[in-house]
Amino acid sequence: MDYELIPPRSLSRSVGVVQAQVAHFNQPLTLRGGGVLPAFTLAYETYGTLNADRTNAILICHALSGDAHVAGYHTTDPDEPPGWWDDAVGPGKMFDTDRYFVLCSNVIGGCRGSTGPASPAPDGQPWGARFPVVTVADMVRAQTHLLDHLGIERLYAVAGGSMGGMQALEWAASFPQRVANVLFIASTPRSTPLNIALNEVGRQAILTDPHWRGGHYYDQPTRPDAGLAIARMIGHISYLSDASFERKFGRRFQHGNQPRYAFETDFAVEGYLQHQGEKFVRRFDANSYLYITKALDYFDISDGYGSFAEAFVHVHDVRFLVVTFESDWLYPAEASVQLAEALDSLGLAVEYHHVPADGGHDSFLIEVGSMARIIGGFLSAGQAAGAGAAPTSTPASASGAGASAT
Amino acid sequence: MDYELIPPRSLSRSVGVVQAQVAHFNQPLTLRGGGVLPAFTLAYETYGTLNADRTNAILICHALSGDAHVAGYHTTDPDEPPGWWDDAVGPGKMFDTDRYFVLCSNVIGGCRGSTGPASPAPDGQPWGARFPVVTVADMVRAQTHLLDHLGIERLYAVAGGSMGGMQALEWAASFPQRVANVLFIASTPRSTPLNIALNEVGRQAILTDPHWRGGHYYDQPTRPDAGLAIARMIGHISYLSDASFERKFGRRFQHGNQPRYAFETDFAVEGYLQHQGEKFVRRFDANSYLYITKALDYFDISDGYGSFAEAFVHVHDVRFLVVTFESDWLYPAEASVQLAEALDSLGLAVEYHHVPADGGHDSFLIEVGSMARIIGGFLSAGQAAGAGAAPTSTPASASGAGASAT
Repeated sequence: MDYELIPPRSLSRSVGVVQAQVAHFNQPLTLRGGGVLPAFTLAYETYGTLNADRTNAILICHALSGDAHVAGYHTTDPDEPPGWWDDAVGPGKMFDTDRYFVLCSNVIGGCRGSTGPASPAPDGQPWGARFPVVTVADMVRAQTHLLDHLGIERLYAVAGGSMGGMQALEWAASFPQRVANVLFIASTPRSTPLNIALNEVGRQAILTDPHWRGGHYYDQPTRPDAGLAIARMIGHISYLSDASFERKFGRRFQHGNQPRYAFETDFAVEGYLQHQGEKFVRRFDANSYLYITKALDYFDISDGYGSFAEAFVHVHDVRFLVVTFESDWLYPAEASVQLAEALDSLGLAVEYHHVPADGGHDSFLIEVGSMARIIGGFLSAGQAAGAGAAPTSTPASASGAGASAT
Repeated sequence: MDYELIPPRSLSRSVGVVQAQVAHFNQPLTLRGGGVLPAFTLAYETYGTLNADRTNAILICHALSGDAHVAGYHTTDPDEPPGWWDDAVGPGKMFDTDRYFVLCSNVIGGCRGSTGPASPAPDGQPWGARFPVVTVADMVRAQTHLLDHLGIERLYAVAGGSMGGMQALEWAASFPQRVANVLFIASTPRSTPLNIALNEVGRQAILTDPHWRGGHYYDQPTRPDAGLAIARMIGHISYLSDASFERKFGRRFQHGNQPRYAFETDFAVEGYLQHQGEKFVRRFDANSYLYITKALDYFDISDGYGSFAEAFVHVHDVRFLVVTFESDWLYPAEASVQLAEALDSLGLAVEYHHVPADGGHDSFLIEVGSMARIIGGFLSAGQAAGAGAAPTSTPASASGAGASAT
C-alpha cells in the first residue's frame, strides 16, 4: 500500500484502506411480512481487531442511503472520499478501532452488495418489485447471521443514527441477550405520519416515473432516474434545517449577484439539490429506495407489544444511550424522550443527551465534537461498569475473521 | 335563487351565490423581469357593497393554489364547497361584508381565469413556457389596474395569507398611497432557501414529467399530471405540522388495523396525499404552478432597497397587522418579527400577533376564532383611528361596479 498517494491528512487517525467483504447464507430468511428469502448475502466491512474473548465488537447500522463502507478508503486514489462516518470510526475516534472491533453490514433490501430487489430471484431474473417487503426487524435478524458467521456471541454495542438507530433499538427488543450497549442517535422509536408522508412522496415520484416500468427496469436502457432524484431531493430537504439552508445557501444565485428572472435554475440551493439528485442515482437503486422507505414507515418499536415500555419489559443488562438534536424536525426529540422515559421506568440504564445543534437531522454526522464526547463517554463508562465485559487489546486468534468470509 | 336547495347551515352568514367576473385590460403590462404582457385579463369576485366615498374596499390576495373565489357559492348545488376563505368573508365575519366591499382577483400567471401560461400568446397559441417570468410585484401592479377599473383610489385594507401576505406587503412598499391597512398573515417578507428548495423539488417533478413536453402540452391528450400531483403533495406536507399530521392520521391504516406489509398504499396518510394530488390536477395547470412558485422564490421585499426598513422608508399613514403561527415551519415567525421591528423602527403603526396554533402553515385558514378576534379588532381599531376613512353603510352609486365589468 502506497501511503504517499494519499494526502497525509486523509490518513490521520484513519483506518486506511479497507476491503469490502461479503458473506453468503444458504438458508432461508423468513420475513415479518410473510415473505421468504431462500438465501441471502450481506456485504460488510470490519475495522480494528476482535479481542480474545470476542467481547469488543461494535456493530454500526447505517441509514437509508448508507452502506457497509463506514470508514477508510477502498483504494489509494487520493480523490476517493472516505466512508460515510469516517469522522466516527478510527484510531482514537469515538468508535476507537484501537479498542473495538467495528463492523457494519449493508441492510437486506439494499443495493450496495446485500440481497435486495436488484438481486436475482430463484428464477434467475432480478426480483424487482417481486422482492418481499422487508422491515427493520428483518434487517436485524439478517445481521444476527453475520454475527454467528464471525463467531460473535454478544456485541459490546450496536450503534446507529436515523434508520441505524431503529436497527439498534430493534436489537435490544428482539435480541437483548446479544447486545450490551445500544446507541440510539437522531432516530425515532416509531415513524410519524409526517415521516411516512415524506417517504410516500418520494415513492410516488419513482412509481410514476415511466422508466420504473413496474419495477422491472434492470434489463432496460433507462432507469427511473428522474423519480429517484426527486425522492433524494425531498430526503435532503428533510435532513437539513432552516438554519443550515440559510448558512449554506441563503438567497445566493448560482451565477452573479442579480436575479435573472428566467426559467432556468437561478438560486444556488436549486443547483445544489439537483446535483444531490444526480449524484444519488449513480449509486442507488430506485427499487431499494422504495423498499427501504417502506421499512422505515413500518417501524414502530411498540408494534406487537403495545407500548414502548412493553417492548423492553423482558430486557435486562442492556445500557442505552439516546441522543437527539435540537433542529432535527424529521425525528424530533419528543419521541426519543418518551422512549428514554419508558426504558428508565423499567429500571434500565439510560443516558439521554439533547444536543443544541442547528444542522437538522444531519447534525449527527456533523457535530463530531459533541458526538465524540457523548459516545466516547458512554462507551468508556460501560467498560468501567463492566457492561458486556471490558474490551481488551489482546487480539483473538480469529482476529480478522471477517476478512476471510466470502 | 332557491335557498331550499342549500343546507341552511351553509348559508348562515354566507355571502350566498356569487358571480365570477373578468376584466380585460387592452394595455401592456411590463414585468419586473423584463417581459411584457401585451394585454391581460383578471378574473375577480366582489362581496358586499362599495360605499358612497369608495373608502370601504378590502382587497384579499390569494395564495399559491388559490383563486378569486374567496367566499360563497357559484351555484345552488348543495354539494358545492364554498370559496377558499368562506370562514373569513361574509356578513358579520372577520371581513364583514355588511361593512366592507371585499374583492379578490386571480393572480397573473395563474390558471383560474387571469392571464397565465395557458392563455393565448400574440401568435394565438398558448404561451406555455414562453410566458414571461412574473413576480409578486407584477401581480400587485396588475391589481392596481383592477382598482382603477372599479373606481377605487385607495383600499381600506389589503389582506392575505401566505403568498397573499407577500402581495399585501408589496402593496405597501410599491403603492403606499393606495392602501390604508396591510394585513400580513402567515407569510414571509422574503422566501428562505428552504422555501425555494421545496418549490424547486415540485418544479423538478413537473419538468421531468415526460408529459410536460417543454411546457407545450395544451393540445396533447395528456398533461404532466403525475409531476403536478407530486408537487402538490410536497406543498401539502409543508402546509401541515407534525402535530396536525399526528392528529389527522397517526399511524392508522387505510384498511383494517394490521399492516399488510404490501407494496400498495397502506397508511391513511399515504392515501390522503395521493387524493390531494389527484384532486389538484383537475383544477390547476402545471405551468402556472411553475410560474407562481418562481414568483414566490423571487420574493424578497428588501430586494432593490437593501433592508426591510429601507423598503418602507417612504411609507406613511399605513397601518400594519402581522400575524404568525407557532407551528408554521414554512414561514417561521422570526422573519415576520424582523419585518414588524423594521416597520416599528420607522414609526409606522404595526400590531403583531403570534398565535399558539399547532396546525402548521394552514393554521391561518383553520384558527377562525383567533383570526376573527385579531383581524376584526385590527380593522375596527383602524376605523376608530380614522385610518383610510371610516367605512359607511351608505352604498355608492357605483355599488357593484365590479359586477358590470366584463
